[in-house]
Formats: sequence, structure tokens, C-alpha cells
Amino acid sequence: MSSGKLIIASGEACADLRYASGFSTPDDFIWFAAQDICGVVMSSLEYNRAKSAAAPGVSVFSEEEMGGPGRLEIIQHIAAAYRLSGFIVPEDFPLIWADRIRSCGLTVTPAAERFFPEREFKSAREAEQITRSLRAAEAGCRRAFEVLRETEIASDGTLLRNGSVLTSEELRFEIDSTMMKLGMLPTGTICAGGFQGSQPHNAGSGPLYAHTPIVMDIFPRSAENGYWGDLTRTVVRGKPKDIVKKAYDAVQEARETAKKYISPDAACADIHKAAAAVLEKYGFYTGRNEKGDYGFFHGLGHGVGLDIHELPRLSPRYPGKLKPGAVVTIEPGLYYPEWGGIRLEDMVFLDETGNARCLTQIEDFLIL
Amino acid sequence: MSSGKLIIASGEACADLRYASGFSTPDDFIWFAAQDICGVVMSSLEYNRAKSAAAPGVSVFSEEEMGGPGRLEIIQHIAAAYRLSGFIVPEDFPLIWADRIRSCGLTVTPAAERFFPEREFKSAREAEQITRSLRAAEAGCRRAFEVLRETEIASDGTLLRNGSVLTSEELRFEIDSTMMKLGMLPTGTICAGGFQGSQPHNAGSGPLYAHTPIVMDIFPRSAENGYWGDLTRTVVRGKPKDIVKKAYDAVQEARETAKKYISPDAACADIHKAAAAVLEKYGFYTGRNEKGDYGFFHGLGHGVGLDIHELPRLSPRYPGKLKPGAVVTIEPGLYYPEWGGIRLEDMVFLDETGNARCLTQIEDFLIL
Repeated sequence: MSSGKLIIASGEACADLRYASGFSTPDDFIWFAAQDICGVVMSSLEYNRAKSAAAPGVSVFSEEEMGGPGRLEIIQHIAAAYRLSGFIVPEDFPLIWADRIRSCGLTVTPAAERFFPEREFKSAREAEQITRSLRAAEAGCRRAFEVLRETEIASDGTLLRNGSVLTSEELRFEIDSTMMKLGMLPTGTICAGGFQGSQPHNAGSGPLYAHTPIVMDIFPRSAENGYWGDLTRTVVRGKPKDIVKKAYDAVQEARETAKKYISPDAACADIHKAAAAVLEKYGFYTGRNEKGDYGFFHGLGHGVGLDIHELPRLSPRYPGKLKPGAVVTIEPGLYYPEWGGIRLEDMVFLDETGNARCLTQIEDFLIL
Repeated sequence: MSSGKLIIASGEACADLRYASGFSTPDDFIWFAAQDICGVVMSSLEYNRAKSAAAPGVSVFSEEEMGGPGRLEIIQHIAAAYRLSGFIVPEDFPLIWADRIRSCGLTVTPAAERFFPEREFKSAREAEQITRSLRAAEAGCRRAFEVLRETEIASDGTLLRNGSVLTSEELRFEIDSTMMKLGMLPTGTICAGGFQGSQPHNAGSGPLYAHTPIVMDIFPRSAENGYWGDLTRTVVRGKPKDIVKKAYDAVQEARETAKKYISPDAACADIHKAAAAVLEKYGFYTGRNEKGDYGFFHGLGHGVGLDIHELPRLSPRYPGKLKPGAVVTIEPGLYYPEWGGIRLEDMVFLDETGNARCLTQIEDFLIL
């Protein structure tokens, strides 16, 4: 008796499942690995599509073939058929199913580290798929530059496009539709101006203004293969304040400094700290006052793959080291409610030979 | 000592959390309810935004205020501060956290039925939000009708738009960009022609052809409030085969017949069976052969709200009854690899007074 592996999730919600099965569904299904076999158990609704879309080596079973349609019966059938004492599952395995399976006398054990630790280390092909999504993000960003350059500045400071006020929503539409034409799903593009830009995950809404930074954080996912790209640029239409120019220089230098640290066995926390030190050198400190957090209060970066946020984390609390195969973002930022936010984000691939390569290919400037 | 309630998830992935907190994040955070309080515990990255976006009555705490940043310490702090013996959690609560919390001597119990049973019953305001997303789906669908009507039929049967072959991808772009302008996130629009349409969740790819059905299943989500709409129409450009015309009539009659059953205390399974009986009356049977499944092999419909698929299910295996507040899809379909698929989907709201009202307002036709 040994343990198998088990996932119950939807391919859309669970990157592990998409990685393992090769396809994506809106509804939950079962993936398992036992002895020499790995398979999926599909409802009639998805059976035919799974047959044509499953990754090589993945067997497709109908619920009836596996003792179903009841899910618990299917899982017991798998355990009996492959002589399993239980299953190793992902950390986010649904509790209700863990409790039900355990009550049948089978073990259910969350994977000690990650369910597929190999997901952290990208093959050249995966890096290429990520790069394609990143290229789409760059195309979206260039479209935004174009739109912003064509605006005029009204007497009240708003940006005018063809005579009417340009909004975050409209700029986002221009970016997103550009990316969709390239086969991307744009799921949360940020176009946040002024004060809104001082909240790192504020998507932005309403009129856009001149003379104040506009943060554009663009992270499309390939509809075809599920890999993400991630890019942030910050621009000002008009004349930025001196403090904004200084913050831009600081963030840019922090990003370039951090990139130099990307190498095999570099401690992730140290890379964050190197970037933070540059920001402090420029006089930008981090803290909290009555208005909330200010300064540089998020991690420097994160892995990107089938999840937009995955390991490793470039944060002061993350204990890991970089290894060949890492694809990470480097995205220092500065946020002050008084003048807004600046964030600049590139992606770097540490390839199997230990060479760090910046994947991002788009120009860098503050003023347009 | 009593039990609190606890969610650990991201607002983007977990509709329960969005329902409870009023906002959405890409990363996991903690929501809890205990005694008279309900609150969220946010990292610095999201603290300011949560302060401005949290639903009325939701207190926003920083990780440090609640004994963090460690997540297990935060949860123990909450249990101690509010004198809790444990937590009730959603069914899909992540197993790793359940095991960790249990190992501290606290109980973790998946909700017996649903975590927020009230999510199944929509207020007039929720029905209105769903309807707005549905209107966007209708606008996208009308745009597709327009695009298809403008095509010419090439000698090889492909549809030509401005001289080049129209593809599923291009038609999807037209639908999705129309909806995005209306504030929607289009996440998986299906435009599947011919054989591809015989797989209910095949999104469709490549050239579109005349004389064969094109299934368009359109389900946008409001970027602002997270509620979904859901709409399916099937059309043929050119001359459909007689079997396709007959299947269309059968599916349309099945849908209209099912609608008449939408009333308080109707058994969900019976509504499915009523629709299936109409399809059989027309001679369309369901089964599986060497090519896979054929006929009507999915549930008739499902609830829609902050999840695209939620309770109740209109399926032969679902034991529940309809109650006032239900918003359900009615979407019978017929699928045969030989000629493709037909699916027609409307949405119905059973309001608090027990009146069933069809929310969908778009014309119904096969040939354009």
C-alpha cells in the first residue's frame, strides 16, 4: 500500500491541475496519479473535450468507468483499484473532501512543500510562453502611451481625448482590447492616476489628470496555454513635480540594482533589501501614519507562471534562494497619498545555465 | 466558548469572501466573524484599499494589530480575543490551514450546507446587478449577429469578412470588446462552430463555416460588483440541414416548457426532466457511442450570482426545490458530432413574491 496523488479542483481555479492535466474547465474534476498511471475523471459534459485536450500521458476516464457518478465512490474506487492507503494533495485541497475521504479510512496529506515543486523552475518552453504573454502586455502598454500622447490638457488639468475627458476605464479598454487581439485574457489591468496610484492594487477609475503619475500594471494570461506576463510602467502627461521625478529615478535605480543580484543561490530576501536600500538612499522611507501606509510596503517581486503570483517571493520574509529556472518580477514602488505612486516592473529569467536575462523589452520613461 | 466563522482565500477566487467583505483581491486574506464583529485582516499591500472598499459593518485590521504577520498567530489571536473554541469554514477551505489550526486545539468545521446559504436567494438589487451583466452579454451577442450578417459565403463554405476568413477568435473579440466597453470582464466566451459546437465547453477556434450551427455562450462578469450574466444563442449563416432546424425547434420548445415550471417549491430535477421529455418527443435521444456522448448530457441550468455556477442546479440528480430569490439559467442543448450543437439559454428570476420573470431580452432565431 502506498499513497497516490489527488487533486479536486477546476482547471480555471487551480494552476496545479492545469499543469497536470493540460486543459482547463470551469467546473471541478478529479485528477489522480497512482503507480504508473495518471488520469482524470470527467463528467459527460467535459468527457469528449478532455479526450481531445488532455496532456500526453493523461488517461481520460468517465465517472461511470471509475465507480461514479458519486465523487466519494470514485475516490474509493481509485484507492482500491491501485491499492492506495491514501493521497497526497495540494495545500489548498478542499477541506470537505479531505474530511470525507479521511472518514473512509484513507489518509489525506497536504504536500510537504509544493504539490509540483517543479512548477517553480521553468523550462525554456515555459519561459517562451511567459515571454509571449509579456510581449502582449508590452503591446498594450505601447497602445496606452499612444493614447496618452494624443491627449490635450484641459484648463482643469484633466486629459482630453477627442474633446472628452479620458478615464481610467477608457485607457484600460485600449490596453485590454490590444492584448485580446493577441490571444490574451486581460483580467485586472491597473490604470491608476494620482491618489489612486498610491494604493498598489487600486485598478483606477474616473478621469485621468495631467502632471501626476499614472501607474499601469498589465498582467495578461494566454487564453491558449494559461501562462501569465506581468509589466508595470508609470508615466506623467505634462510636468511632474520634482518629488515625482526623484521618486521615479529612485525606483528605476532600485529595479536595476536588484536585477544585478539575480543569480543562482542569491537569497531572495537580500534582493528585496538591496532595492529597499536604494530607495532609502534617495530619502524615501517606509512607514504608516494616520493616512495609512507609505513608502515601499510590498515585496519586490514574485515568480510568474501558470499563476500570476507564485514562488519564489522576493520579499524580506521569504527564506528561499534563487535557482536556475526562476522567472521573477522585479517591481519596486513608492507610494505616498500626497502625490501618488511610482512602480516599474520588469521580468527576469534565470536560465538553466545560471544566466539572468531580462525578458522585458519596452522603453522606460516618466514624461510623455 | 463558541465557534466563529473563518475564510482564508482571495476575493477573486472565492465568491463567499467577496460576498462577505465587499471587495476583491488577487492574494489570500483572512475574513472572520465572531460574536458581534466581522472583520478582515490585511497585509500592508491591501490595507489602505480595504479601508476604503470594505462593505459596511466590516472592520479592517492590519496583520500587526491582530498578532501577525504570521497567519497561524493571527488566527490564534482571533480565537483568544473573542473566546472561540474554533471556526466554521467554507467547504473549500484550504486543507493545510485546517490541519494547522486543528493542531492548535481549535475546531475547524466545514459549513453543514453552504457557508452563506442566503447567497442562493437574490435580493432585488442583486437581480438587478445580474441583469446588468446579462444586458452586456446581449449587447455582445447582437454585435456577433451584425458581424455574421455582414459575412459572405466563400466557395469552400467559410465565412468571409472584408475578404478574409472569419474565425472563432475574431468573433469572440467582437463580442468581448463590446462587453468590456460596458464594464465587463469577459472570461471565456464560446464561439464554436460545427463539430466544435458538439462539445458544450469547447471555446471554438479557427475558421467559421456557413450552413452549420455556431454556438455562442457569453458569460461576462461585472468588473465593478462581481455579478455574472449568462446567455447562449445558436445561429446558422446560410442554409441549415433539416436535422439542425428540427433540433433548434426542439431545444427552443424544451426551454420554453421548462420556464413554465419555474415556481416556488418546484423540484429542480423535475424541471430538467420536463425539458428532456420535450427533446425525446422530437426524437432526440441521449447516449454514448464510440464517438463519445450525444444528445442532451448536461444539466438544464444552474444558479448565477457572484459565481457563474452556483446553487440551485437544475439537474436530474439535484434534490432541492426552487425558492423565491432563485436566479437560474435554462439552457437545454443537443449535441451530435455529425452536425454540431444547438444550445439556447435564458435566465429566469423567481422574485420574492413567487413570480417568475425571464430576465433575458434578446431575439431568438436560427438563420441569419
